[in-house]
Amino acid sequence: MLVVMAANASEQEVRGVIDFLDKLGVAGQPVGGPACTTIHVVSARNGIDSRQIRLLPGVTQVVRDGKAYKLASRDHYPADTVIKLPQASIGPDTFTIIAGPCAVENEAMAMRTAEFLMSRGVRLFRGGAYKPRTSPYSFQGLGQEGLDILGRVRKQTGIGIVTEVMDVDHVDEVEAAADIVQIGTRNMQNFSLLKRVSRSSKPVLLKRGLSATLDEWLMAAEYVMSGGNARVILCERGVRTFADHSRNTLDLSVIPAAKKSCHLSILVDPSHGTGNRDHVMPMALAGLAAGADGLLIEVHPDPPRALSDGAQSLDFGQFDLLLLKLTELAAVFGRKLN
Amino acid sequence: MLVVMAANASEQEVRGVIDFLDKLGVAGQPVGGPACTTIHVVSARNGIDSRQIRLLPGVTQVVRDGKAYKLASRDHYPADTVIKLPQASIGPDTFTIIAGPCAVENEAMAMRTAEFLMSRGVRLFRGGAYKPRTSPYSFQGLGQEGLDILGRVRKQTGIGIVTEVMDVDHVDEVEAAADIVQIGTRNMQNFSLLKRVSRSSKPVLLKRGLSATLDEWLMAAEYVMSGGNARVILCERGVRTFADHSRNTLDLSVIPAAKKSCHLSILVDPSHGTGNRDHVMPMALAGLAAGADGLLIEVHPDPPRALSDGAQSLDFGQFDLLLLKLTELAAVFGRKLN
Amino acid sequence: MLVVMAANASEQEVRGVIDFLDKLGVAGQPVGGPACTTIHVVSARNGIDSRQIRLLPGVTQVVRDGKAYKLASRDHYPADTVIKLPQASIGPDTFTIIAGPCAVENEAMAMRTAEFLMSRGVRLFRGGAYKPRTSPYSFQGLGQEGLDILGRVRKQTGIGIVTEVMDVDHVDEVEAAADIVQIGTRNMQNFSLLKRVSRSSKPVLLKRGLSATLDEWLMAAEYVMSGGNARVILCERGVRTFADHSRNTLDLSVIPAAKKSCHLSILVDPSHGTGNRDHVMPMALAGLAAGADGLLIEVHPDPPRALSDGAQSLDFGQFDLLLLKLTELAAVFGRKLN
Amino acid sequence: MLVVMAANASEQEVRGVIDFLDKLGVAGQPVGGPACTTIHVVSARNGIDSRQIRLLPGVTQVVRDGKAYKLASRDHYPADTVIKLPQASIGPDTFTIIAGPCAVENEAMAMRTAEFLMSRGVRLFRGGAYKPRTSPYSFQGLGQEGLDILGRVRKQTGIGIVTEVMDVDHVDEVEAAADIVQIGTRNMQNFSLLKRVSRSSKPVLLKRGLSATLDEWLMAAEYVMSGGNARVILCERGVRTFADHSRNTLDLSVIPAAKKSCHLSILVDPSHGTGNRDHVMPMALAGLAAGADGLLIEVHPDPPRALSDGAQSLDFGQFDLLLLKLTELAAVFGRKLN
Repeated sequence: MLVVMAANASEQEVRGVIDFLDKLGVAGQPVGGPACTTIHVVSARNGIDSRQIRLLPGVTQVVRDGKAYKLASRDHYPADTVIKLPQASIGPDTFTIIAGPCAVENEAMAMRTAEFLMSRGVRLFRGGAYKPRTSPYSFQGLGQEGLDILGRVRKQTGIGIVTEVMDVDHVDEVEAAADIVQIGTRNMQNFSLLKRVSRSSKPVLLKRGLSATLDEWLMAAEYVMSGGNARVILCERGVRTFADHSRNTLDLSVIPAAKKSCHLSILVDPSHGTGNRDHVMPMALAGLAAGADGLLIEVHPDPPRALSDGAQSLDFGQFDLLLLKLTELAAVFGRKLN
Repeated sequence: MLVVMAANASEQEVRGVIDFLDKLGVAGQPVGGPACTTIHVVSARNGIDSRQIRLLPGVTQVVRDGKAYKLASRDHYPADTVIKLPQASIGPDTFTIIAGPCAVENEAMAMRTAEFLMSRGVRLFRGGAYKPRTSPYSFQGLGQEGLDILGRVRKQTGIGIVTEVMDVDHVDEVEAAADIVQIGTRNMQNFSLLKRVSRSSKPVLLKRGLSATLDEWLMAAEYVMSGGNARVILCERGVRTFADHSRNTLDLSVIPAAKKSCHLSILVDPSHGTGNRDHVMPMALAGLAAGADGLLIEVHPDPPRALSDGAQSLDFGQFDLLLLKLTELAAVFGRKLN
Repeated sequence: MLVVMAANASEQEVRGVIDFLDKLGVAGQPVGGPACTTIHVVSARNGIDSRQIRLLPGVTQVVRDGKAYKLASRDHYPADTVIKLPQASIGPDTFTIIAGPCAVENEAMAMRTAEFLMSRGVRLFRGGAYKPRTSPYSFQGLGQEGLDILGRVRKQTGIGIVTEVMDVDHVDEVEAAADIVQIGTRNMQNFSLLKRVSRSSKPVLLKRGLSATLDEWLMAAEYVMSGGNARVILCERGVRTFADHSRNTLDLSVIPAAKKSCHLSILVDPSHGTGNRDHVMPMALAGLAAGADGLLIEVHPDPPRALSDGAQSLDFGQFDLLLLKLTELAAVFGRKLN
Repeated sequence: MLVVMAANASEQEVRGVIDFLDKLGVAGQPVGGPACTTIHVVSARNGIDSRQIRLLPGVTQVVRDGKAYKLASRDHYPADTVIKLPQASIGPDTFTIIAGPCAVENEAMAMRTAEFLMSRGVRLFRGGAYKPRTSPYSFQGLGQEGLDILGRVRKQTGIGIVTEVMDVDHVDEVEAAADIVQIGTRNMQNFSLLKRVSRSSKPVLLKRGLSATLDEWLMAAEYVMSGGNARVILCERGVRTFADHSRNTLDLSVIPAAKKSCHLSILVDPSHGTGNRDHVMPMALAGLAAGADGLLIEVHPDPPRALSDGAQSLDFGQFDLLLLKLTELAAVFGRKLN
């Protein structure tokens, strides 16, 4: 940590900072001349609160050296993480489609969608059994029954399952049903849940929180990784801003930034990102062009009758059009669609 | 629900909307002349997805009539909710201080702080046993040991306890230790947790999410209330914006807006709201002036040595100064400090 | 305009709204049954303040029918606007590159950059003579001398010139020097300036304001168009959000939304959008994939020595790499690079 | 400036930074040990682009020492600026009300309002002759006729005039008519206009931009001050965020932060800040409690018939109620209402 003193900081103020650090049990070493003094803080300890030091007289800025996340950091682990599943591989050489309905509504629609997807070469199915809903009066998902349906879909079609877990008590069941366990936007900082899935044998798809910075997101990944589960996949799904022309603001610029800071794969969810099926195709293509490793995308056999998020779901014909365009585009970027 | 058609919408487009509604099993009644057609949707059903209808050809806007929350709404329950505890009363005639350290660090400091507060007439103590921390490497709270300490603090001093619960599995213990159960910012939309505390016998202090709209916040309250626990207290603690001069942007304007929409009490947390103890006093006073029913505020016997959030904690002397000013101000607004 | 009454609005409240409208000289016609009353407001007048009516007792929502912009609206003018210049054409069939340094620093560098660009088939040159700078102590541009340089660059190389005008007093000179006049982000709602360029014979490149909604942006375009200059080109350059991993948040999702609402072309500025040359290429490609009609991009012969925005400028080698990739990608989308 | 190197930065990377600085003509001095190297940049030159250095290999952070604004900074000028006008004084010991209609609509209403205000002891009148409006089709103000009316209002009642100038060409006339010249939100970074009013003999009321950081706002003040006009008054009027319960988010926490960073007075505009007259009183009182030096507030003899912003204007009775409460509150804070 570095403590930057004001240009006009007095010797007494510099002294004050060093004494304060001393009380915390860490050493501060002043460097630089009178016009620009910095105090280097040498400590192996975590948990020194930089905001406190910031408030001391004469202090201008406190700079942390190094990222708070280690396991997720590309500085420490330069090679890209590749998640290999029996059905598909997620990493820099592929472009992975995870598609399906927002919610598992019944077995027929789930099966029909999975069969359609498999016929198109899509090997991972998304569908929620537990649904986080803003209103207590909205459809909350089929719960265990939904997981059972997903299990039969997997058995019959061979498709891999990606489904959300909302609380610690359901992790066992979701793990059993899923090939990838999803942590939703609203739970990105549900630390109890993160700790629980850090002991899971399944990869974790970690959606970005509605107003999470990149650092907070990677710290959430670090929760999972530091508990022993290194197989984390990031998913950008739009953040909350003042803009009102789309449901959320899909922040594609986080893709190159995340790729630089960490070695994890990153997917894009243009369905939640835009909230509008007419905008899903352009933003899906833009995600691929921006460097994403795949998509999480809502497809429904009959969007107008979907129990949730029908407005942002593609029907099978629209999905086919998208797939066509993605295939062309993936070739330009040397990625293999899977 | 009202579907507003474009000025130049064709008869066929109007027909299309009505047919679409018909497929969903609800009736649409077109009203208004050719220059401005509206379709009134008559339905008792929840869960019609207005975004879908918005995407139909010729549709300009879809307007929901009525709020999605009912139990929290002032339209339905005009009288202010007053939460009466043995120690204090939270409502429109009082101004309630809930004070204490960010985290329970050990018994001595918790006891000392509680005794100080009781000596000043403050009857509710805040202090975290379970702490949500951005980094897995930061101090995570004492857990059950912290709750035990809080129990002894309550027993010895008589002060009421407000403490956070972070997951469903700990609700029993937290309920036993607390007079008010706190749901933190990051859990405002942890729906499993909301459902669990909706069956609690203790009042719930519900902090606003980092980027929650007022409606989403009141829907979260509705989760608690619709499960049977009507004793919800709101707490504004700053939202996330582009502004970088304070840790969060304390949104005091939500106070009059919330008071108009719902009948619940609303507190302000100027400690998290500003992240800077120098700004706590002005924002605490501003909260009272804006119509808040009380404060959640961090006080620590030795802020520089606090294990978390020391930068935003007042020491006892600063707290005394604040109390003095609050007393004067509360008199102007006809509120009794408690 | 539609005034939606609350479900429990009294007859007297409905009456109150109609009387209020009457005082404003417009007629209100109540429609719908008791459970859901709407008042249709029939008026040719602009300037009825919907927020006022919103505050009347019993009113739930006020809905405007139709957009406030007319000339920019695709509802009124469905065909895409194509801007034809001697050097290049901007519209749905092309992908137009406007490249060059942030500021014109001296004649040699401007000439060298223009010659490089022409050799690569780029026909439009960007470069600021007047520079809006946050600090009064930063380099403010060469002013008239910069315009003179641009004139010589155009004469010698044949490249078209795009340059910013910052105030009404300089419009004449900028118009004389430029093929496209640029209105910068900070001036998107400088209405005096918009009115002045609405009388210009040159097309106007209108950058989105730092926190402008799509509607506000199109209303700014309407200022230019309603004054008689229909040749407006939009340019997305990043908006301000909480996100701190890039200088601004490039909002590519505004592209499909703008294309739906208006008939104007829209460019993307990935240089200002990201503030980081390493992220320019992915976001430029993503812009093309999202449906943009071209790029505004910073190129500098020696970015480390640039007087402004060197961090986000590509050098010639990097620009060549980008061009290569853009060419491949444009082919996929059936657009001709120019 | 300080360049903080990554923990694992190589000697070559440190060398690279120093060489880069050398090319820019400034010296870099490495300090600190191998675990944490910092490079101190010693230079009197402005305009070194820190973002460029940030992108060099091995660099983690670049820290500027000192604020970019000097004349506005409290570090350099610790004493509070007091603006003394014949009618009123703006500074830390007073609480100054500037009230009046959004726009000057006609002489009768302006005169009536001014007389009412003078009878209540309010000595500064606000009212726009030039109005910035989002739509070109909205009422744009009376222009010179409005200024003439303001002149007669001042002459007849003795009230001081605060009115907005929107462009360089009108500054002479506005200066002649006004006691304080207002720069509106949309023009906070209209640098040409800032430079022009920096040569004015009248104080400048500088509203915060819709998404301006505190530093940007103070840099805009610096534009005015560095041109020779030290009499700048800040005015917070709400910023743009995701929140939709009020027109803007009134950021009262900027008051203590601004007071710490600069020596200028700061007012609050609760009318634009909330957009809703029902919320004006609580937020006006909260502004005073948070440390503001006064209010800019909309009052209209007949708000329902106001040509602009009627929804947020108080009528005379509401203003009297507010004044009563402000008087009580000002006493608590030792401020004299004027």
